[in-house]
Amino acid sequence: MSRFMSRRFDDLEAYVPGEQPRDMQYVKLNTNESPFPPSPAVFAAVNEEEVSRLNLYPDPEGLLLRQKLSKLYGVGVENIFLANGSDELLNFFFMAFCDAHRPVAFPDISYGFYPVYAGLYNLPYTQIPLREGFRLSYQDYCHIDSSVVIANPNAPTGRAIPPEEIEEIVRTNPRHVVLIDEAYIDFGGESCLPLIHRYSNLIVCQTFSKFRSLAGGRLGYAMGHPELIADLNKIKYSTNSYNINRLTLTAAAAAIDSNDYYVQNSRIIQENRAYTVAALERLGFETVPSLANFIFTRCPAIPGGTLYEKLRAKGVLVRHWTKPAIADYLRITIGSREQMDVLIQRTAEILRGE
Amino acid sequence: MSRFMSRRFDDLEAYVPGEQPRDMQYVKLNTNESPFPPSPAVFAAVNEEEVSRLNLYPDPEGLLLRQKLSKLYGVGVENIFLANGSDELLNFFFMAFCDAHRPVAFPDISYGFYPVYAGLYNLPYTQIPLREGFRLSYQDYCHIDSSVVIANPNAPTGRAIPPEEIEEIVRTNPRHVVLIDEAYIDFGGESCLPLIHRYSNLIVCQTFSKFRSLAGGRLGYAMGHPELIADLNKIKYSTNSYNINRLTLTAAAAAIDSNDYYVQNSRIIQENRAYTVAALERLGFETVPSLANFIFTRCPAIPGGTLYEKLRAKGVLVRHWTKPAIADYLRITIGSREQMDVLIQRTAEILRGE
Repeated sequence: MSRFMSRRFDDLEAYVPGEQPRDMQYVKLNTNESPFPPSPAVFAAVNEEEVSRLNLYPDPEGLLLRQKLSKLYGVGVENIFLANGSDELLNFFFMAFCDAHRPVAFPDISYGFYPVYAGLYNLPYTQIPLREGFRLSYQDYCHIDSSVVIANPNAPTGRAIPPEEIEEIVRTNPRHVVLIDEAYIDFGGESCLPLIHRYSNLIVCQTFSKFRSLAGGRLGYAMGHPELIADLNKIKYSTNSYNINRLTLTAAAAAIDSNDYYVQNSRIIQENRAYTVAALERLGFETVPSLANFIFTRCPAIPGGTLYEKLRAKGVLVRHWTKPAIADYLRITIGSREQMDVLIQRTAEILRGE
Repeated sequence: MSRFMSRRFDDLEAYVPGEQPRDMQYVKLNTNESPFPPSPAVFAAVNEEEVSRLNLYPDPEGLLLRQKLSKLYGVGVENIFLANGSDELLNFFFMAFCDAHRPVAFPDISYGFYPVYAGLYNLPYTQIPLREGFRLSYQDYCHIDSSVVIANPNAPTGRAIPPEEIEEIVRTNPRHVVLIDEAYIDFGGESCLPLIHRYSNLIVCQTFSKFRSLAGGRLGYAMGHPELIADLNKIKYSTNSYNINRLTLTAAAAAIDSNDYYVQNSRIIQENRAYTVAALERLGFETVPSLANFIFTRCPAIPGGTLYEKLRAKGVLVRHWTKPAIADYLRITIGSREQMDVLIQRTAEILRGE
């Protein structure tokens, strides 16, 4: 930190994203990207005509894309907010709906960016411990008179809770906004989206980065009561009016038009997930039940950090955290069958001491 | 504002960007976009191969692009920070380098987003009046013991000050960071960039939106001392690690490779600027001397608001503010010769009462 930076950031620890290595070609299973390219419709949409209009600002309201999302999800355009990746959305949430008088709570094991946002804005926050087996108990979040952020399915565990339990959290914290981060909802989980029509204090946040093969485009979206969406817009128009670029708006609209392609890809991911879990089980692994495009798994025969390093040396990149409660585990993105076969083979080699 | 939003935003007034109308095709001279498409190199770079990789996150460090900027400007990669448009950069600046103990000053007539950021973070700020003829007097910013933000050339006036005067501001406020917003520097102004090698408290901010025909891509960049760049990164990695999408990184790198194309376009804009100023002068207009891709002009025969409305009705969109000190004026983007001829013709018609 330079001597010029505001002292309120003295204790701020920034987020560390998963490695994006440039040194060699890895089987990259560390940042939950889709192994599939965007749909043919996206290739067709990002064309010369679109490039020729890059001299013009994008539509700051992203109306066309919001109309398409509105149809797909059966919500109004006024229920939808677009962001430069769901991280921007989360940032706006912590900024808009939390402060010294509005504390925020989230699980102790979850997306590592949540405590960073809380630190950034010096918010009072509580990290609520997960229960046995990384289970999230919804009762721990009821009547806590606090803003709440829950990733569902949770990351890095992959576990999900049903909409009825989310409803209880939303219903019992009526003075605060509950954000449900559904980044991984499209791999077998059940969305709580219908609840936004009955509760004015719920924001459901999704992304184009995983299910829709558009991590490189940066697009997240929030759905909720129009008043909450208006609040998010107030923050957006006070930080960065044109937060989404033209080609991403175009690509995303084409992605919505070809939803079946992505649904089919998700089926393959789910099959590959079951295949990988079974194969690792045969190697002695214990895997947390996952409804996401990744699994959280450990092998009693080898420490997580060691396995991570050895896989890396063999060209397979997965995610490992040194935090004691989860240091035994690896988070492994579910990729193509070929990628998973490489992972399984390399892991077997490592366990054989090769 | 919903009842859930933090009360600290009660008085916040968001920025209102220039209209991006969808109702009809306008001669659009209201948001300082380039009339030229991106260079042929950009068309070639945004190709199927790039789209096929959109499933993968972008390089969060944008290293390739920073290397190209580094070569073009003769600064180190560690001197460069990339942002999702220069608005994001400005946002980070106000967040990082200003607080209750670090007030900020900027001109009373300048980019309308500056006071919005100050309001967003509840910063103590001073709007220093421009002098006669919208002149910025650098002495007004010397020894003020405050962070400083100056657009140079200034918007919406188009006037610029030389690097020697900026140096005096930087030199005499050694406890604070001075940000020079050079969004419009490439249309005839002289950049103060070389000063970053001698002063550790200067940030120079530029954009791909104007000179480089990439407003739709959203890309701004800051150049300054590595410690200041590290501070900006600390904020970035605490809000949105992957703030720039893949296709924009690709398009921008190709734009740098074809710098001559943009220099040539800038020459044409500067010719069209002189042409427009002269034509409007013949119609009785008084125009502030501009080194930007827009002019700030008034016609004693007709109020600014009236002329704006009448031009709009005739399909020509320019920018007008109701703030009394500048209500007589219009800010008119310099576009192609054809666009300027339409503007001049329609203006002449309006003055003839047609």
